[in-house]
Amino acid sequence: MRLSDRQIKKGECHMVQVAVLGHGVVGSGVVELLNKNSASIAKKAGKEIKLKRILDIREFPDSPYAGLFTKEFADILGDGEISVVAEVMGGVHPAYEFVKACLEAGKSVVTSNKELVAQKGAELLAVAREKDVNFLFEASVGGGIPIIRPIHQCLAANEIDEIAGILNGTTNFILTKMIKEGMAFDEALKMAQELGYAEANPSADVDGHDACRKICILASLAFGSHVYPENVPTRGITTLTAEDVQYADNAGCVIKLIGRAFKTEDGKVYAMVSPALIPKSSQLAGIDDVFNGILVRGDATGDVVFYGKGAGKLPTASAVVGDMVDCVKARGTIRSLQWEDSAENNVADYKTVSTTQYLCFQGENCEALCRDAFGTIQSLARKRRPADEFAFITSEMPEGKLEEITGKLQAKGLTLLSAIRKLDY
Amino acid sequence: MRLSDRQIKKGECHMVQVAVLGHGVVGSGVVELLNKNSASIAKKAGKEIKLKRILDIREFPDSPYAGLFTKEFADILGDGEISVVAEVMGGVHPAYEFVKACLEAGKSVVTSNKELVAQKGAELLAVAREKDVNFLFEASVGGGIPIIRPIHQCLAANEIDEIAGILNGTTNFILTKMIKEGMAFDEALKMAQELGYAEANPSADVDGHDACRKICILASLAFGSHVYPENVPTRGITTLTAEDVQYADNAGCVIKLIGRAFKTEDGKVYAMVSPALIPKSSQLAGIDDVFNGILVRGDATGDVVFYGKGAGKLPTASAVVGDMVDCVKARGTIRSLQWEDSAENNVADYKTVSTTQYLCFQGENCEALCRDAFGTIQSLARKRRPADEFAFITSEMPEGKLEEITGKLQAKGLTLLSAIRKLDY
Repeated sequence: MRLSDRQIKKGECHMVQVAVLGHGVVGSGVVELLNKNSASIAKKAGKEIKLKRILDIREFPDSPYAGLFTKEFADILGDGEISVVAEVMGGVHPAYEFVKACLEAGKSVVTSNKELVAQKGAELLAVAREKDVNFLFEASVGGGIPIIRPIHQCLAANEIDEIAGILNGTTNFILTKMIKEGMAFDEALKMAQELGYAEANPSADVDGHDACRKICILASLAFGSHVYPENVPTRGITTLTAEDVQYADNAGCVIKLIGRAFKTEDGKVYAMVSPALIPKSSQLAGIDDVFNGILVRGDATGDVVFYGKGAGKLPTASAVVGDMVDCVKARGTIRSLQWEDSAENNVADYKTVSTTQYLCFQGENCEALCRDAFGTIQSLARKRRPADEFAFITSEMPEGKLEEITGKLQAKGLTLLSAIRKLDY
Repeated sequence: MRLSDRQIKKGECHMVQVAVLGHGVVGSGVVELLNKNSASIAKKAGKEIKLKRILDIREFPDSPYAGLFTKEFADILGDGEISVVAEVMGGVHPAYEFVKACLEAGKSVVTSNKELVAQKGAELLAVAREKDVNFLFEASVGGGIPIIRPIHQCLAANEIDEIAGILNGTTNFILTKMIKEGMAFDEALKMAQELGYAEANPSADVDGHDACRKICILASLAFGSHVYPENVPTRGITTLTAEDVQYADNAGCVIKLIGRAFKTEDGKVYAMVSPALIPKSSQLAGIDDVFNGILVRGDATGDVVFYGKGAGKLPTASAVVGDMVDCVKARGTIRSLQWEDSAENNVADYKTVSTTQYLCFQGENCEALCRDAFGTIQSLARKRRPADEFAFITSEMPEGKLEEITGKLQAKGLTLLSAIRKLDY
């Protein structure tokens, strides 16, 4: 980069030295971007960003950065020249210990580690604030999609009413195959694994845990108090069937795995992860394959949707490096990116919140029993529906009430085949 | 707002005084938001934001803010306590003179005025930089959709390859009516006027000027040198027909008014506004009614799309107030939001850039002449197509070459009914 004479005269021609913890997929992407786009990054940061150290327990003798590697975290922690650290190791330990130590040593830290932020965000933000440095994590939600910063910064004039998103690309790929190609869940999962989108053990994705961590981060930021994953009712997509997809289609909907949060009237946070029927006309319905989309409903802006690749080496690395640039530019803690810890469970009881559901029952006299129990419903059709199967969408009522009626129908001998929320975004 | 003891101890418990120039739709929305969301705005800004003055030539005796109004700009310019000014008057004059004077007096200025930014952006950014204050304009593109800040800040680690957007809600509403309800242009325009989406004189919208100003702002920011509206080939939607919509549908596309910009190999900027055929599978194709959507293609993130209401009182005011918060938080000029002036025309000659087009001709022996002239084409069908009409999509070639072939066919007696670019986003 050529700095202008004016910048040189003002004494801004110095550089900032940084380190990267972890040299896996995202970590190597961070190193690649810092190198490849160094000129424009320096221009935006106002200073050159120089990579000084990379921490990894493995050896990378053939890397062009071979000289920068260390296996000793102390080499980074104790290096006073390193002022910004990118943590891209994943997992809570030892990432948590490393990040906390860096913050306490007065280094700013950026991370892509959603598990860490969802479990330790409030604490680490407090340490950063205390030390007047930054803890940033744009990459932890939505990969390369800008979402954390727009929420606290661009939408600063808004009260955020609600957030709903397709937050996990792997499950969205599987659902897209089930919806568009009529695949069964197992078949679509196998394809996702073959393509490298799903892990050999796919639980974190298909059981909704990954989406849960992300909605926790978004809810904490939007509503100001830490929402812990263990308090958020979370359901994955493993029990979805091709029949559910067909009934949803008949209702003018597609099924998506949605992470959702809003503030209830009593000041608690409603947060959940579950499959949901979404009208085809919704902006979220058209988000297919491995893409993510996040809807933020502000009291002034109305619905704003952010769409893009929610994962992947360079998109995620791009968000990490964007945060590094912000750390370089910031003077002291960015105060809009903060939330408080929550001493007690701040998550609302989902049973008290109104919803509509798609339900599918099986059994003798099924339709009549359902109509009798639920009153006004919208019945649904599918090809080759057995005579003893009945699917419908309920009217809106508290979810506890829905569960109560459903329980009574089961007591009368009906089998509950499916129960999936229907949302209107 | 209750500030924490810690904030009070650190001496941050003071306020910032601001003024608003113009009390029209957006201006009154700014005042409303500053009042309604004052607590959360103060929390995000770190200081209370206090509205001290409103400039308008009209009288507002019944306003709850009646005491704040002035008709004299000097009352604001000369008030040393006012450090941030929101310009929401619209038009280049006297907005330009007012904004420049405020910046020169060391006040930061935020604006929703796309005409001003598109014509004077480079100059005003330079004045702001010289005075170490800020000139921000998130509201000038996409209303309440965060787009300016994500481009220069969140996507800082990216080289931006391309930007394409549905940037004007009025024309998108008209096109949606033409596509979904088969309306003619005139009929849809009339409806837009009745609903208040279009002005009595709709030229700025339907002729593409509004979209042109917005793509100029985005292109200037993304590529670093000011792109002036008068250099950008701009075509509106007034000549589109129901037949064009039908042929587009047959091609698996919808027609949208697209503002588009990318950097060419010789370092110039290709920028244009025109209707375009967009595949239905595209994220931009599903953006209907008065909504806007902007696709940003980064070298690391891939395609990121921002969607929401592109206009309206509170969405736009929300972006203005978000910028005011940023001015309060910033210490000195935000250096990532900058571009240089362009001494000579920096816009590439569109004729040199490759494209595909949808073309529709009429005349004797029409199909044979077209096939002969264009070689490989994709022919298109519509109901009740006259025998002497032929529509098709060309292969990709420089637009100058397309115009040349089209001109030769016209010389042979064919009438050119339509020529619309086809894009692949």
